[in-house]
Amino acid sequence: MEMDRILILTHNLPDGDAIGSALALTTGLRQKGKTVRATWSGELSSCYSILTDAYEEEDFEPEHIISVDLAGVHLLPADTKKYGEMIDLAIDHHGTNTGFAKESLVVARSASCAEIIMDVIEEFGGTITPYIGSCIYVGLSTDTGCFRFNNTTPESHMRAARLAMLGVDISNLNQLFFEQKARARIEIERLVLDSMEFTEEGKICFITITREMMDKTGCLESDIEGLASIPRSVEGVEAGITFRERPNGNWKISVRTKYLNAAKICSYFGGGGHTFAAGCECSGDLFDIKVAMIDIIKREMNA
Amino acid sequence: MEMDRILILTHNLPDGDAIGSALALTTGLRQKGKTVRATWSGELSSCYSILTDAYEEEDFEPEHIISVDLAGVHLLPADTKKYGEMIDLAIDHHGTNTGFAKESLVVARSASCAEIIMDVIEEFGGTITPYIGSCIYVGLSTDTGCFRFNNTTPESHMRAARLAMLGVDISNLNQLFFEQKARARIEIERLVLDSMEFTEEGKICFITITREMMDKTGCLESDIEGLASIPRSVEGVEAGITFRERPNGNWKISVRTKYLNAAKICSYFGGGGHTFAAGCECSGDLFDIKVAMIDIIKREMNA
Repeated sequence: MEMDRILILTHNLPDGDAIGSALALTTGLRQKGKTVRATWSGELSSCYSILTDAYEEEDFEPEHIISVDLAGVHLLPADTKKYGEMIDLAIDHHGTNTGFAKESLVVARSASCAEIIMDVIEEFGGTITPYIGSCIYVGLSTDTGCFRFNNTTPESHMRAARLAMLGVDISNLNQLFFEQKARARIEIERLVLDSMEFTEEGKICFITITREMMDKTGCLESDIEGLASIPRSVEGVEAGITFRERPNGNWKISVRTKYLNAAKICSYFGGGGHTFAAGCECSGDLFDIKVAMIDIIKREMNA
Repeated sequence: MEMDRILILTHNLPDGDAIGSALALTTGLRQKGKTVRATWSGELSSCYSILTDAYEEEDFEPEHIISVDLAGVHLLPADTKKYGEMIDLAIDHHGTNTGFAKESLVVARSASCAEIIMDVIEEFGGTITPYIGSCIYVGLSTDTGCFRFNNTTPESHMRAARLAMLGVDISNLNQLFFEQKARARIEIERLVLDSMEFTEEGKICFITITREMMDKTGCLESDIEGLASIPRSVEGVEAGITFRERPNGNWKISVRTKYLNAAKICSYFGGGGHTFAAGCECSGDLFDIKVAMIDIIKREMNA
C-alpha cells in the first residue's frame, strides 16, 4: 500500500453503503498514517449524523483516488466528475462495474461494498474499531434491507455477528436506520394506503401521492423514499403503480412488477428502467392516464 | 431423552416463533423415532403453509408434554389449558417464565425460542434438515423483526448464517414473511394508522385494533402479527401501546418501549414479558385503561 494523500469518491445520491464504505475506508487508512479524505454530494438524512459527526475533514491536494460502491464514472456527482479518468482503485460489488479504474477490486457476490471494505481493512492490518464497524454495518444492513433482500448471503450474517461482537451497537443503528420513521412519514403512509385502488381482480394496484398530501403532512422528498414498493408488496398484485404529482402538475409514475416487464410498460409512455422497476412521466388527467396504463398492463399480461 | 408419545404445546395466538419452534422440535424428535404431535390454536395466515403443509398429524394419547415459547400456563389456548399442570419440560426464552413445568430450559438471552430448539435438536443428535432449518429461521426472523429488533444477538446472525449454509432458502422465507402482505393486512394497517393517537408530547403512541376492524377487513389473528411494533417506530415515541379487542370484550395490550421497562409497566396490570416488549390484558372501558396506562408510563419516565 504505497498510496498516500488519497481522495475517496462514491456515487451520486449516496446511500448507506456509499457513505459507510467511504467513511470506513477513510478511517481505516488513517489508522495506517495515511492522509485521506472522503467526499460525497448532497444532504444526508439525519440518521447518518451518527457516522458523519465523528468524521474530520482534511484539506490537501489528492495524489491518489479510490472509488467505493461506484459502478461507472457516469454515476459520479457533478463536483467529482473531473476525477473520473484518474481513479487508481475501484472497490465495488456491482457486477456491472465498467472497469474504469487502473485497478479494480469487484466482488459481485458481496451484498454490499462495505463488506469488501471490511476485508480490505483487515488485509492491510487495520483494526475494525466500533466506529469503523458501525460504518460497515450501515452499508451492509441498508444494502440488504436489514437482511431481508435476496442478496443477503451467509457471509452477510457472519459479518454482522462479528461486528456485533466487536462492539458495534447494531441495536441502535437498526433503530436509527430501520425502526424509526418520521411522524410525517407515518402520516403520508396512512394517506397513501387510503389512496390504494385495485383493478383486474387485484392484479393491478395503484397508489397516489398528491402535492396536497405532501403539503398536508409536511413530507420532504426523502420522507417518501420506498413508498413506491408498497403496492407490489400486496399479495396477488402483479403490477404496483405509484402516481406522484409533480410541482408542474405532471404525474411521475413508478411501475414495480413481479414477473411483467416494467421497463417495457413504461416505454409506451416514453419512460424506461429495469425489468421489475421502471418509471415514466405523463401529463393530463389522472383518470385517463390510469385507463391507458391498465390497457398497456393488460396487453403485457396477455403477451 | 426417555420421553415418548409427546405432545408439544405453545401459546395462544401463535406467532412465527411458536409455530416454528413447535414444528422444528416435533420433526427433530420424530427423527429419533419418537411419536410426537404439535398442537396450536386458530387459523394461520397463508405464509405459514410453507411449514404446515409438510407437517403430518399423528393421533395418539400423549404421555409427555413439552411446551415451547410459553411463558406461563395462563397463555395456553382454551383446548390445551387442561394440560397446564402436566407439562414435563418447558423450552422458552422469556425471562418471565413462571416455572410451571417439571423441568425448564429457559434461555432469556436468546432472541427466539427457535434458536434454543436448534441447540436442543443438535444436542440430542438430530439433524437440522432444510425443513427444520426453515422452521427455525421463521421463528428466529419473525421474533427479531428480520434482525431489526434490539433482541438480535451475534448468535442470531451466526445461526442465520448456518441455516443459510445448511440449505434453508432464506430469500424465499423473507419474501413470504416480510415482503409480501395479504390484502387484509394492508387494509388493517390503514385502519390502524387511522387509529393512531399521540400523547405526552408525542412520547406515547396508542393504536387500537377492534373486533369490528378485524371483521371488516377479514383479518386472521396471524395477519396482525407485528402491528404492535408500529407505534414505537414513530420518531420521538418512547412507549408504543397497542390495544387489541378480544372476542370477550377484554383488551389485550402490547407495550413496546425504547428505554423504559415494558415488563414493569405491564406488571402493574398483571402482565409481563421482556424489557422492551411486554403485554397484559385488561377489562373495562378503553378510555379508562388508556388513562391508567398513561399514568403508569409517566411514573416510569420520571423514575
